[in-house]
Amino acid sequence: MTIKVYGDSISGNCLKVKWVLDRLNLSYDWIETDVTSGSTRTQTFLALNPAGQVPTVVLEDGRVLAQSGAIALYFAENSDLIPADAYDRAKMFEWMFWEQYSHEPYVAVRRFHMRYMGKAAEELDPKLLERGSGALQRMEDALRGGGDWFAGPRLSLADIALVAYTRMAADGGFDLGLYPHIQAWIGRVEGELGLSPYV
Amino acid sequence: MTIKVYGDSISGNCLKVKWVLDRLNLSYDWIETDVTSGSTRTQTFLALNPAGQVPTVVLEDGRVLAQSGAIALYFAENSDLIPADAYDRAKMFEWMFWEQYSHEPYVAVRRFHMRYMGKAAEELDPKLLERGSGALQRMEDALRGGGDWFAGPRLSLADIALVAYTRMAADGGFDLGLYPHIQAWIGRVEGELGLSPYV
Repeated sequence: MTIKVYGDSISGNCLKVKWVLDRLNLSYDWIETDVTSGSTRTQTFLALNPAGQVPTVVLEDGRVLAQSGAIALYFAENSDLIPADAYDRAKMFEWMFWEQYSHEPYVAVRRFHMRYMGKAAEELDPKLLERGSGALQRMEDALRGGGDWFAGPRLSLADIALVAYTRMAADGGFDLGLYPHIQAWIGRVEGELGLSPYV
Repeated sequence: MTIKVYGDSISGNCLKVKWVLDRLNLSYDWIETDVTSGSTRTQTFLALNPAGQVPTVVLEDGRVLAQSGAIALYFAENSDLIPADAYDRAKMFEWMFWEQYSHEPYVAVRRFHMRYMGKAAEELDPKLLERGSGALQRMEDALRGGGDWFAGPRLSLADIALVAYTRMAADGGFDLGLYPHIQAWIGRVEGELGLSPYV
């Protein structure tokens, strides 16, 4: 049985899984699952993943995995997407957890409301802009003071986790022009992953 | 140089790190860092961790690590707190990411407002209760349908991550009496970690 990925193509979290699988040359079936229409809340879907979230993956043996970070780690094990050095690897985890806790809930959520729910900036909790901008500034500072990648000497799961919603940040009213190091890094990641610039 | 842990003893995220270090018999200095008084927002602290969050760890060689999950993974590597089986290990990651995204922002945040900010239930966003209860119900269902532990055949980092705020949930107005399997599991985790019941 082929790996099945239940994912919504508009979701950065789902794209992270797609990019990891593509990078590793693993074949899979992508089952487009529209979050906005409630497809993750049906009885059938909840039986697969009681959290009602995408991405959800069904492995070749039928077992199920959820959470983009966990899925990425499972497939990328023993690949160069995970740094060999223990400290670099820990920094990769640090950025992955930080992205889910301190970046995604602001940058991705503001984008979702503005681009997909048709909300105007004035209708939104001002914390989304403030904290999202803070998260982007923190990435800019890290890149200005560091190397080309977030953890270790080459592209890792940290870059993949961080780039997903960062490259889409303009959808949420964030001005990437303020962050030149982030812009250059997005170009590097897109180059590695063979992606066209996000529009 | 001894490992330094900057942590606030009222924070479940910080206690996770303490429990892992204690379990592994690693020695460390605990530097009590009061979140409520702004100690994580000083220039000195931000130079250590620009995210301004605890736990923050300074390793023996002076390098810094943040994010409870990343710190726990760094120290627990090659210990039995990380399941040997690849799928069990992925489930451990799944629960760790899920806890930070779908449990802590509701269960821990409601507790913080009620117990430490002196807020009444009526003043709080009703989503905190609704989603926090949903998270607890999901854990109850997983334990009812599964084994004694969240990932693999024994205590893992998944249990440590999940137990931290779950055992304190009553502080946030959640009734653990509704979740008998969670209550039994909390007892098992506390037994393994040598903790007294939380009051």
